[in-house]
Amino acid sequence: MKVKVGINGYGTIGKRAATAINQQDDMEVVGVTKTRPTYEAVTANELKLPLYVPSEEAIQDFTKAGIKVAGTIKELYKKCDIIIDCTPGDVAEGYKKEYSDAGIKGIFQGGEDHSLTGISFNAMANYKESWGAQFSRVVSCNTTGLIRTLYPLDKKFKVQNVFSTLIRRSADPNDSKKGPINAIEPSLKIPTHHGPDVQSIMPWLNIQTMAVKVPTTLMHLHTVMVKLGTQTTTEDVIALWKKTPRVRLVKGKSGIKSSAQIMDLARDLGRPRGDMYEIIVWEDGVKVVGDTLYYYQAVHQESDVIPEIVDCIRSMCKMEEDASRSMKKTDKAMGI
Amino acid sequence: MKVKVGINGYGTIGKRAATAINQQDDMEVVGVTKTRPTYEAVTANELKLPLYVPSEEAIQDFTKAGIKVAGTIKELYKKCDIIIDCTPGDVAEGYKKEYSDAGIKGIFQGGEDHSLTGISFNAMANYKESWGAQFSRVVSCNTTGLIRTLYPLDKKFKVQNVFSTLIRRSADPNDSKKGPINAIEPSLKIPTHHGPDVQSIMPWLNIQTMAVKVPTTLMHLHTVMVKLGTQTTTEDVIALWKKTPRVRLVKGKSGIKSSAQIMDLARDLGRPRGDMYEIIVWEDGVKVVGDTLYYYQAVHQESDVIPEIVDCIRSMCKMEEDASRSMKKTDKAMGI
Amino acid sequence: MKVKVGINGYGTIGKRAATAINQQDDMEVVGVTKTRPTYEAVTANELKLPLYVPSEEAIQDFTKAGIKVAGTIKELYKKCDIIIDCTPGDVAEGYKKEYSDAGIKGIFQGGEDHSLTGISFNAMANYKESWGAQFSRVVSCNTTGLIRTLYPLDKKFKVQNVFSTLIRRSADPNDSKKGPINAIEPSLKIPTHHGPDVQSIMPWLNIQTMAVKVPTTLMHLHTVMVKLGTQTTTEDVIALWKKTPRVRLVKGKSGIKSSAQIMDLARDLGRPRGDMYEIIVWEDGVKVVGDTLYYYQAVHQESDVIPEIVDCIRSMCKMEEDASRSMKKTDKAMGI
Amino acid sequence: MKVKVGINGYGTIGKRAATAINQQDDMEVVGVTKTRPTYEAVTANELKLPLYVPSEEAIQDFTKAGIKVAGTIKELYKKCDIIIDCTPGDVAEGYKKEYSDAGIKGIFQGGEDHSLTGISFNAMANYKESWGAQFSRVVSCNTTGLIRTLYPLDKKFKVQNVFSTLIRRSADPNDSKKGPINAIEPSLKIPTHHGPDVQSIMPWLNIQTMAVKVPTTLMHLHTVMVKLGTQTTTEDVIALWKKTPRVRLVKGKSGIKSSAQIMDLARDLGRPRGDMYEIIVWEDGVKVVGDTLYYYQAVHQESDVIPEIVDCIRSMCKMEEDASRSMKKTDKAMGI
Repeated sequence: MKVKVGINGYGTIGKRAATAINQQDDMEVVGVTKTRPTYEAVTANELKLPLYVPSEEAIQDFTKAGIKVAGTIKELYKKCDIIIDCTPGDVAEGYKKEYSDAGIKGIFQGGEDHSLTGISFNAMANYKESWGAQFSRVVSCNTTGLIRTLYPLDKKFKVQNVFSTLIRRSADPNDSKKGPINAIEPSLKIPTHHGPDVQSIMPWLNIQTMAVKVPTTLMHLHTVMVKLGTQTTTEDVIALWKKTPRVRLVKGKSGIKSSAQIMDLARDLGRPRGDMYEIIVWEDGVKVVGDTLYYYQAVHQESDVIPEIVDCIRSMCKMEEDASRSMKKTDKAMGI
Repeated sequence: MKVKVGINGYGTIGKRAATAINQQDDMEVVGVTKTRPTYEAVTANELKLPLYVPSEEAIQDFTKAGIKVAGTIKELYKKCDIIIDCTPGDVAEGYKKEYSDAGIKGIFQGGEDHSLTGISFNAMANYKESWGAQFSRVVSCNTTGLIRTLYPLDKKFKVQNVFSTLIRRSADPNDSKKGPINAIEPSLKIPTHHGPDVQSIMPWLNIQTMAVKVPTTLMHLHTVMVKLGTQTTTEDVIALWKKTPRVRLVKGKSGIKSSAQIMDLARDLGRPRGDMYEIIVWEDGVKVVGDTLYYYQAVHQESDVIPEIVDCIRSMCKMEEDASRSMKKTDKAMGI
Repeated sequence: MKVKVGINGYGTIGKRAATAINQQDDMEVVGVTKTRPTYEAVTANELKLPLYVPSEEAIQDFTKAGIKVAGTIKELYKKCDIIIDCTPGDVAEGYKKEYSDAGIKGIFQGGEDHSLTGISFNAMANYKESWGAQFSRVVSCNTTGLIRTLYPLDKKFKVQNVFSTLIRRSADPNDSKKGPINAIEPSLKIPTHHGPDVQSIMPWLNIQTMAVKVPTTLMHLHTVMVKLGTQTTTEDVIALWKKTPRVRLVKGKSGIKSSAQIMDLARDLGRPRGDMYEIIVWEDGVKVVGDTLYYYQAVHQESDVIPEIVDCIRSMCKMEEDASRSMKKTDKAMGI
Repeated sequence: MKVKVGINGYGTIGKRAATAINQQDDMEVVGVTKTRPTYEAVTANELKLPLYVPSEEAIQDFTKAGIKVAGTIKELYKKCDIIIDCTPGDVAEGYKKEYSDAGIKGIFQGGEDHSLTGISFNAMANYKESWGAQFSRVVSCNTTGLIRTLYPLDKKFKVQNVFSTLIRRSADPNDSKKGPINAIEPSLKIPTHHGPDVQSIMPWLNIQTMAVKVPTTLMHLHTVMVKLGTQTTTEDVIALWKKTPRVRLVKGKSGIKSSAQIMDLARDLGRPRGDMYEIIVWEDGVKVVGDTLYYYQAVHQESDVIPEIVDCIRSMCKMEEDASRSMKKTDKAMGI
């Protein structure tokens, strides 16, 4: 019997989670929700994903727009074992209560605070902490990105201190409202929340972060300078990441000069929606000098957390005890 | 027996042509060429597309980079019936001679002049003109876009005059060199070449064009004002395009406000590389006022000519006499 | 005695109007208003422009931020003969009543509808229509731009029909909120309001407009195709605009390839804030073919209406009967 | 007698140096050079700056374009005591020989290597090292920016280690060729050259840098994390920079959220060309946590080195022995 999954919010993350979950053989999407009759709702219909809406009135709006509706969100609750909350900010608290009342589990996203669930999730670093939990939180795209490279680094070379700057894309590719068009904007509240957010998974890590927003839509990019506790070489670090799951090395020499070519590579790989689930590290941009390691990594904010969501379902629903086995199963099904 | 197709230049157009040709049941790609060992060459290997290079020396460069090479381009010529020339500007003349000497047919792209081949191609408008030809030219992305909407319009409502402005994306999504970053640049040589290029297919059409470059990468967008020779209504024009192949209507009301959401829709449709082969017309941006028709259309410059290339092969290789049947076959195989 | 001018809204237009008015010898700024204690308010202090705020409470906010306040807006009303309304949309109706109750004149901006005032203003085209009026409206930056080139063209060569596309900058240079970052967005309500807005000044003109938004901040750019009623040549059209006030010809050949170099030229000219008050026409982008004239023009949305505001004050306050003399006086003082 | 200054290359830096030098009472521009008859050459004429060109043939090109020429560059050499080399990369070596042969002094820019001159210049940090020198190099915009804040910091609080990421604008505002339009591009050669370049002035400083290019034109932005050797507070650091010359503090709370509003502020200040000569530090983005200081700074790449060039002339031509007095004189004349 497959685990039945609902997706509350069929937007950027929600629709990707739906695709990935239906690629697995041990879980299935039983419904998604949408508040307005947009093109994404139309596509949900075309993909035969049962579509639920907030209220009876909304049903009429959707029907008028020619979109089939399966019912209201309350009915979806009855059909699923676990719900992936992909709603926008500020409403999670209320939804958590609804899920709780309906007796179903819930996974929240990194836009929410750790305190909402008390448990945060990264498959490689703390898969077992969410075991059987009613609620967990898959950390944000940037936090996931930092943990993917820092966790194995710390295990092998003992990270003493991390100084990272996050150069953030300002809007997703399908967002034509947000700017800036021609400006760089610093995150003035420092240190930024990214360091503490990494510590929700790796509480022992000494990490300082700063962040700026820049006018791009494709990916976030991180500069990372790490003080290591043991001696190593550039080659050893590269070798470590080559065997780390969900980390992919690319080379500037092969024409991957920027986030633009990474996204083109993802399209060439035939991934659904041209997504790049792995954290990208530039192999020719990794360097160890003395006890300092420098590297650049890029994070596809629309998709890097998707495989984590799948693994989190398995942990919370007690479907697979071994983190590594869950990750392999997820990745194989998703073509990673 | 499938027609054997070579692709000279495995870049933006070349790699998409390869995918589309291999989706058909009556043609196959027997080899592609690449001049440098980039990530695109690596992907060609992964997709098991035999890779040819310009020279013996190049073979060494590719081999050193870990990329398998099938031989030099001269050897590819021997294996194929027809070659799709996707080389950059300024070298087509030389290649045409090479193809001619090798006794194979060749399709050039819209970046070349009509005079190179003497025949230009658009499936709907003049499929039969390339019948059995040794050389033909598939017109450019913008010209293809204008013909897709204007040709049926002219047939049904007699177009008297067209005033169109092309707002051009400045670089493709995988190009991180070209700008501008923050400027609008007019094409000072006016009227621009787009009008005469449409006339290479529809010589009777009265069309004036102007063009500007803007800092985006996703799609070109055209504003079109048409003086019609017969009376009609907004609804009739929309109805005409709804049944026109390779034209797709979208609505601002459904959240498709700009080229950004069109590209997101294409990704959601599950198209290879998130491509949008159809010309996009905003249904709520079409309006007939008196004898003037106004409309906006968007052109995905990376992919809209791909189905035309497939049809052009069929016409040149005498594989299907009927334009409409070829188009249907192409579109079905490509999931349009 | 100088005419006393108040400026309601010390933002993009308001601060430029203040500078230009104080450059004249027959008018002076007696106060400006600001709702929040931003850097623009600080600069008003530095420039010794008396600063008024909406309410007594606001005085405290400003004082806490170290900014000197002269009083509330009601007190400003008592000090001025005429007020330039540079408030954002949706509040003009209310302010018009306030100005009326205070017995002062008011100039509104092109963001408001013609119906608000019943009179619209362009110095060259209809200076006398605002003579002595209590309220008038200086038309928007784009409308001003179209009238500057079309009015003399129509007078000399009888314009039969205009087909224009406005490629609009999406945000001002000091706006880091608005996007899009990477998209082109059509104005779906067509024909766009720009045609009718030109007709508020030139009601006899046959003009059709379409518009798109693009991710730039510097200038709007218009493509214009005009059907002329009398025969002429490219040279004659250029000669006409060379002697037209507030129109400046530039050449692509001199390195002015785009809006970027125009703004750099304005900075080199030593203009306050690097403003370009003139409408820019590319001389090597003007062409007459048969009865069709093609041209590109660029509009500096932050500043092109500023000299018009000065002239509008003179007309409304009956300071100078002759439009041409007012324009010359304005332009000389502003360094145009 | 004023020192006679020539400017070789009247472009982005050259034209600003010309303005600043002519604002001083102890030096004057006797000529500038330009290789092509662009709008900048026209402006040089309007500003009555004698214009020199590379060769006799060039004189004809300029004359044909209606631009007055004073002679060839060889003639300029005879008229000046010192030349500011603002030529593009790769030609400095050759020019150094020409200046040497002509017996004049020369100032190079930060785009050149330290080894070209053996002396690098920053007014606050090492004014006296260039005293009487024939050749010196004013370090680049980014290096100047880092030194302006780090030098006083080090003197007062003993800097132990600096971790800085430079988020670089990809093109200047008047450049419409260079991209990227929508990508973030890492500088793969790490550590980047910025650290060593700071050390050409402060050889004792422990500094690590990484850099990325982003699609903006206005300013560079630096994130800086500093390990301090003595205990201090956020307030003390802010107080230090408040009295540091050529450093300006701004607040996000006053609406200065990004580089966009900084440039608008510069325009409001009435600076020539809307330039911001000072390094901008966000006061509400400075924070001391334990021994770590975090701050964001922005660098106006077109102009921050201009006052340094003026001071460098004074040092090299032995016009003023005291660095601080030279800086004050420069800043007062430039309105800083």
